[in-house]
Amino acid sequence: MREISIGIVGAGTVGGGVVKILHRRIDNIRNELGLPVRIARIVDKEISRFAALPVGDARCSADVQDILGDDAIQIVIELSGGTTFAKELVLSALSRKKHVITANKALLAEHGSQIFETAAKAGVSVYFEAAVGGGMPIIKVIRESLVGNEIFSVKTIINGTCNYILTKMTAEGSAFTDALKDAQRKGYAEADPTLDVGGVDTGHKIAILASLVSGGYVPFHSISIEGITTISKDDIAFARELGYTIKLLGIIKKNAPEGQLDVRVHPVMLHGNHILASVSDVYNAILLEGDAVGQILLYGKGAGEMPTASAVVSDVVDAARNIIGTTPVRIPMQYYSTSRSIQVKPIYTVTSRYCLRFTVMDRPGVLASLAGYLGKEGISLASVMQKEGFSKKGVPVIILTHAATEKNLRTALTHIEAMDYIKDRTQVIRIED
Amino acid sequence: MREISIGIVGAGTVGGGVVKILHRRIDNIRNELGLPVRIARIVDKEISRFAALPVGDARCSADVQDILGDDAIQIVIELSGGTTFAKELVLSALSRKKHVITANKALLAEHGSQIFETAAKAGVSVYFEAAVGGGMPIIKVIRESLVGNEIFSVKTIINGTCNYILTKMTAEGSAFTDALKDAQRKGYAEADPTLDVGGVDTGHKIAILASLVSGGYVPFHSISIEGITTISKDDIAFARELGYTIKLLGIIKKNAPEGQLDVRVHPVMLHGNHILASVSDVYNAILLEGDAVGQILLYGKGAGEMPTASAVVSDVVDAARNIIGTTPVRIPMQYYSTSRSIQVKPIYTVTSRYCLRFTVMDRPGVLASLAGYLGKEGISLASVMQKEGFSKKGVPVIILTHAATEKNLRTALTHIEAMDYIKDRTQVIRIED
Repeated sequence: MREISIGIVGAGTVGGGVVKILHRRIDNIRNELGLPVRIARIVDKEISRFAALPVGDARCSADVQDILGDDAIQIVIELSGGTTFAKELVLSALSRKKHVITANKALLAEHGSQIFETAAKAGVSVYFEAAVGGGMPIIKVIRESLVGNEIFSVKTIINGTCNYILTKMTAEGSAFTDALKDAQRKGYAEADPTLDVGGVDTGHKIAILASLVSGGYVPFHSISIEGITTISKDDIAFARELGYTIKLLGIIKKNAPEGQLDVRVHPVMLHGNHILASVSDVYNAILLEGDAVGQILLYGKGAGEMPTASAVVSDVVDAARNIIGTTPVRIPMQYYSTSRSIQVKPIYTVTSRYCLRFTVMDRPGVLASLAGYLGKEGISLASVMQKEGFSKKGVPVIILTHAATEKNLRTALTHIEAMDYIKDRTQVIRIED
Repeated sequence: MREISIGIVGAGTVGGGVVKILHRRIDNIRNELGLPVRIARIVDKEISRFAALPVGDARCSADVQDILGDDAIQIVIELSGGTTFAKELVLSALSRKKHVITANKALLAEHGSQIFETAAKAGVSVYFEAAVGGGMPIIKVIRESLVGNEIFSVKTIINGTCNYILTKMTAEGSAFTDALKDAQRKGYAEADPTLDVGGVDTGHKIAILASLVSGGYVPFHSISIEGITTISKDDIAFARELGYTIKLLGIIKKNAPEGQLDVRVHPVMLHGNHILASVSDVYNAILLEGDAVGQILLYGKGAGEMPTASAVVSDVVDAARNIIGTTPVRIPMQYYSTSRSIQVKPIYTVTSRYCLRFTVMDRPGVLASLAGYLGKEGISLASVMQKEGFSKKGVPVIILTHAATEKNLRTALTHIEAMDYIKDRTQVIRIED
């Protein structure tokens, strides 16, 4: 072997970054590997993109078959996005015994089992450091650095759009819609922000992490997902008054009954001195807890052209090293095998502390009634705050509870919400330690 | 090959942790590698240590020749400490074509070039994830995850003893000696704490990181090192009043002239909102800046039995994978080759902002004199604070300067300290952004 030959599909934001890094780091990478890594071909429908990139002697075209049909290409980097074309491309490349590098979390979360089974059959690997956490090397840290650990908890801020919006709402007291518009103006949110603010993107990423951490297949559609669209500036303000910050977290916990994994995505209130509470703007962070290593945190830019491209390039070097050596295929297939499916703990059995915000009529007996219905379900109150003249709709009553199951909480809320003194939707935000 | 056979030298704190982790993760590691990793032999002078460990069928003895002479052993884990016996052991093991894993930062910082040259000649590798940052996977992150990056700055809190002492002094207003005694009582500081509080341990670690980051050999003895023994509770109190926290940092910057690297260890004042300012107690953190990835932070326990053992085990799996495959030897030797020696930027040419604390006589004209001598060297003042009746020795005057070279500062201080109005040692703490 005289060189490692790669093909890149997608020369947009991240793809362009990969071309730039491979160009300027070509000597370092050759020193590291003992062989050069060469971009043999780049494919993009918008062929105008090639002009701005240091493509060198790479052959540029608009037809993905040029890469798939080139037997010299050993690694295909899929940066086309979406799950239709990308899925077909990845499966074709794997079937032709080409290793695949992808940043496509939706593709892996929704079609991971098929993709990894295809890779296993063909005897090649799928690398996806860039799919979760952009420039933060979270996949490698979990799989390699923490190989001596049983990881029993993961808490992560992994969507820059949501974190920017919540940071903005907290800093400026702005409403969700205004913060979203600002994020869109700055290029931090897409024109259709549904996947981000609805929590689905965080869900895709946490599904991938849950599979790695559990050593089994965690189906994306079994994960309970809530986004940040219902978080109001009142929620932010009350949380702040209580010393808390609201963040969207992806959570994995191994405290569930044997064979079940607690995996979920929802907004949480974090106490101000929590290490994740200070992660602001578009930054991401992941807090892992392992039985040997204790707590470990990674922090960095979870998205953007160059941070994501940095992760892709680290996969290129890993893949190249494994091709040059005869190192065992490095993605254990059992993580994604449907035959080792992990059952996600149903959300109604999950125990949590809660912050409840009721909007009620200002009349005697209301607080007693609220406390009564909660008490009937075994939910005891940690603190209560009632505010005067806050909203036209009614008086806000904020209750922080001790730990209770979601089921008991929902039962209590069903009774409470049938009362005539409830004047608006009740807000429920879980409190995370 | 049917198994990977290892020998462990040193069954103390970290060695014991390694034995425990390899015992309880034996199935996971076999799944990961396709082969079992077996502890063939353990050597420790204190043979009583073996009884408490799950040594399985490992042969335990007090003689290191038992491991060196066993041809079946492919990997030697050196956890004996010190630099005399350890150096001899490591060189012998490498000469016999055994791969070496070590947590010994002093050994690598002081004898790295000889060790890596011996390894290169024998065609084997040296793994040292546990030598820097304990459970934080900093070596792997720099060498593999950030391979696409030019790293142009490293700022790290990497000595748990110093960070505990400074945290304690900040939280409780205690003096250095009291905080040190408390650290010793809790087992966070050794009976002879010189290497830690003098900054030498941080220096060893930053020398290793500087070699990795620069791709050349950074001689340990060329690094300017200051510890925390001169930090008083007054320094802490004044820093706090100004919104700063005092931390001991290891610093690497690539802004030096061509061929020079800015590497140093000293206490700094960090503004309260700096991400490293909130790293407390025995926790460590490292903030890296790369041209592609931007800022990235790792945070975790930098020492202790299990976190350090976790790092050793990750090296065991890496080494085993490279043995099973025929992957290129993974520590580029040029990093430690004396033929690629990197010149460290002399500290007197380093530019910094400073916090100066003078203790002066309370008489007219003193402030003008101080400002005059500083001004003559081109050092302009950012802010001045004078305190009434603080110390019996004199009046404290705190000056924060704009950026100036160490040389100009030292010249000004030489003039100032000759003045009769100076009543005590002048304290100089650099301000880091």
